[in-house]
Amino acid sequence: MMRATSLQNIKPSYIREILSVANSKDIISLAGGLPDQATFPLSLMQSSLNNLTTLPSLFQYGNTAGYAPLLNYFKRHYQIPSSHEAIVCTGSQQGLDLIARAFVNPQDKVVLEAPSYLGAIQVFGLAQAKIESVSQQADGPNLQELEAFFAQRDITLFYAVPDFHNPTGVCWSLAVRQKVGQLCQQYNVTLIEDVPYRELRFSGNELPLASSFCPDHSLVLRSFSKIATPGIRLGLVSGKSDWIAALNTVKQAADLHSNMPMQAVLLDLLQHEEFPNHLDKLRNLYHERCQALINLLTHELPSYCEVNKVDGGMFVWLLLPSCDVDALAKSALTKGVAVVPSSVFYHQETKNESALRLNFTNSNTEELTEAVKRLAKVIKDYC
Amino acid sequence: MMRATSLQNIKPSYIREILSVANSKDIISLAGGLPDQATFPLSLMQSSLNNLTTLPSLFQYGNTAGYAPLLNYFKRHYQIPSSHEAIVCTGSQQGLDLIARAFVNPQDKVVLEAPSYLGAIQVFGLAQAKIESVSQQADGPNLQELEAFFAQRDITLFYAVPDFHNPTGVCWSLAVRQKVGQLCQQYNVTLIEDVPYRELRFSGNELPLASSFCPDHSLVLRSFSKIATPGIRLGLVSGKSDWIAALNTVKQAADLHSNMPMQAVLLDLLQHEEFPNHLDKLRNLYHERCQALINLLTHELPSYCEVNKVDGGMFVWLLLPSCDVDALAKSALTKGVAVVPSSVFYHQETKNESALRLNFTNSNTEELTEAVKRLAKVIKDYC
Repeated sequence: MMRATSLQNIKPSYIREILSVANSKDIISLAGGLPDQATFPLSLMQSSLNNLTTLPSLFQYGNTAGYAPLLNYFKRHYQIPSSHEAIVCTGSQQGLDLIARAFVNPQDKVVLEAPSYLGAIQVFGLAQAKIESVSQQADGPNLQELEAFFAQRDITLFYAVPDFHNPTGVCWSLAVRQKVGQLCQQYNVTLIEDVPYRELRFSGNELPLASSFCPDHSLVLRSFSKIATPGIRLGLVSGKSDWIAALNTVKQAADLHSNMPMQAVLLDLLQHEEFPNHLDKLRNLYHERCQALINLLTHELPSYCEVNKVDGGMFVWLLLPSCDVDALAKSALTKGVAVVPSSVFYHQETKNESALRLNFTNSNTEELTEAVKRLAKVIKDYC
Repeated sequence: MMRATSLQNIKPSYIREILSVANSKDIISLAGGLPDQATFPLSLMQSSLNNLTTLPSLFQYGNTAGYAPLLNYFKRHYQIPSSHEAIVCTGSQQGLDLIARAFVNPQDKVVLEAPSYLGAIQVFGLAQAKIESVSQQADGPNLQELEAFFAQRDITLFYAVPDFHNPTGVCWSLAVRQKVGQLCQQYNVTLIEDVPYRELRFSGNELPLASSFCPDHSLVLRSFSKIATPGIRLGLVSGKSDWIAALNTVKQAADLHSNMPMQAVLLDLLQHEEFPNHLDKLRNLYHERCQALINLLTHELPSYCEVNKVDGGMFVWLLLPSCDVDALAKSALTKGVAVVPSSVFYHQETKNESALRLNFTNSNTEELTEAVKRLAKVIKDYC
């Protein structure tokens, strides 16, 4: 069989390929987007796991929208209004894929931040959407560019990661959130707000969701990979009821429903009295590592490298003078440090910054120190 | 947002809708395709579930293709040759969806048996395929019709359920399997062989997979919903390596990977020394219920109703004189018995048999007796 047309322009994920190489013991990986598995709240999940077999109905076919007690918890916890609904997905990645399948026709225009989450580029690529790029500034997307796109009146949706962006770490200001919400309403564009890192804020004040300023022009994607664990593959989409109904219809064909026993375990975990402590410890640890990495980069790298402070998330974006970042990243790998070159986060070759995405959540201070030492040598050779 | 074109012709699953109604205590449901949850091998899964937290890496992001030890087990157990690969999916439903997304362009022709599995009709509907129907006979698809389709030289794939078909219970004969394999090779058509019920044979001899007669012109979909439990959402696709690579690329965008802890639990279960006994008990129970249902139908229903003996699976296909089966099924629901009318298993209105799909795995003999009594009254009113 020939691959379908939609698949012919999709490259396998560079990150997932580098991750398999980066497992070698000699390589320190700042390439992945992995939480530190030593932080997983497994002890808080133990009794739920032990008790699963007392609830055989969890192992039966279930509702496509998700495990009812978990959905009810989400509706209360996230204060989802009665005109809105929610659907549990096999990771927020599936939520994004369902949205593209339910609402995007080939050649429809969607706006993404540039750079953008690689998984979103893949999803909209498979959907054969026409991707328009809005450039990123320190406080969020360039609003003039964004409004110019919206004013064309043919934009289906705007996909964005306002809290501690992947890959740049940028967090939208309150003013940008308000303005984006207003623009989405004014031009009837749907904001797809992806917030996998929202709970990983370790400095500054929590800001309202951008979608709170355009509740009927938005869908919110939540992930439990960073605050619970990734391996259980659970995420959530919420938004207007008829939109969630459309996602439900696609999900029936996509996988019937997400795994039920783990939904019950997740519910117990989120309601566990120790869960807030777990989150605090996680934020403190990641804050320490983030500061350590930024200090190391500031002191070890040539002054022509730029690194921005981040208030949360998992990544630091290291800006370099214009250079061949793919060759640089490959060379770094041979020198024992895995990083992701900026090129993979742009859907087209134009307007690319030369930069590296560095993950700080899955390496300890010692590893970060050695990684930056190795990286410094490679950068001095290339730039 | 408007629903995408691909979604506009997809109706939400009638079965999943009837199932929510059929949960009422007053209704005996023969409508679902549910295994009996009292048979779930939960005690065999208990120690694996207890031990999951000793393996934190199971809760981390994992490989898209699946948990390596489980994949290795499958490759040995199913004797997958070195030129072939396998990929774990979020239920075999996802496997089918990935196949359609990877290989089917809008307007491509695919052949399905008529009647056919509703989930397949939905998947190929979403893919905007042109569905051609081959009629079913007692020993499998009509081979003359099938060859006539293949001879048009524009058929992408042939999706079929050769073992205890859903909804009809038909099991292909050895001769049909050989001939279909030969036709697929001769006309370069890929057989998508879906075998969720294969292990549920309770009489007759096991037959080779149809795909064993066209190994390089086939993909095999396996489900663990019937032999393990549905709620864990795990299935498998195997076939030529480059085809599995294409599925892998789509799966990266679809959900990154399937849930890992349950893959480890499934591996332990499949290797548990008591697992063969579990399967034997399951087959014996379903055999008893199947015989009970067929006896009841033979004795309680008017002689113009026809029911075929089945050697396995979960369903009996009750042929009726030509009538409005939708109205009949609705009326049955008001009389306290849920069944699925044949209409939902055809993608188009033509050539439909008047029939009902009756499930025998999820009701005990007492319930089956009462259900047939209620059904007999409705049928006498309608036919």
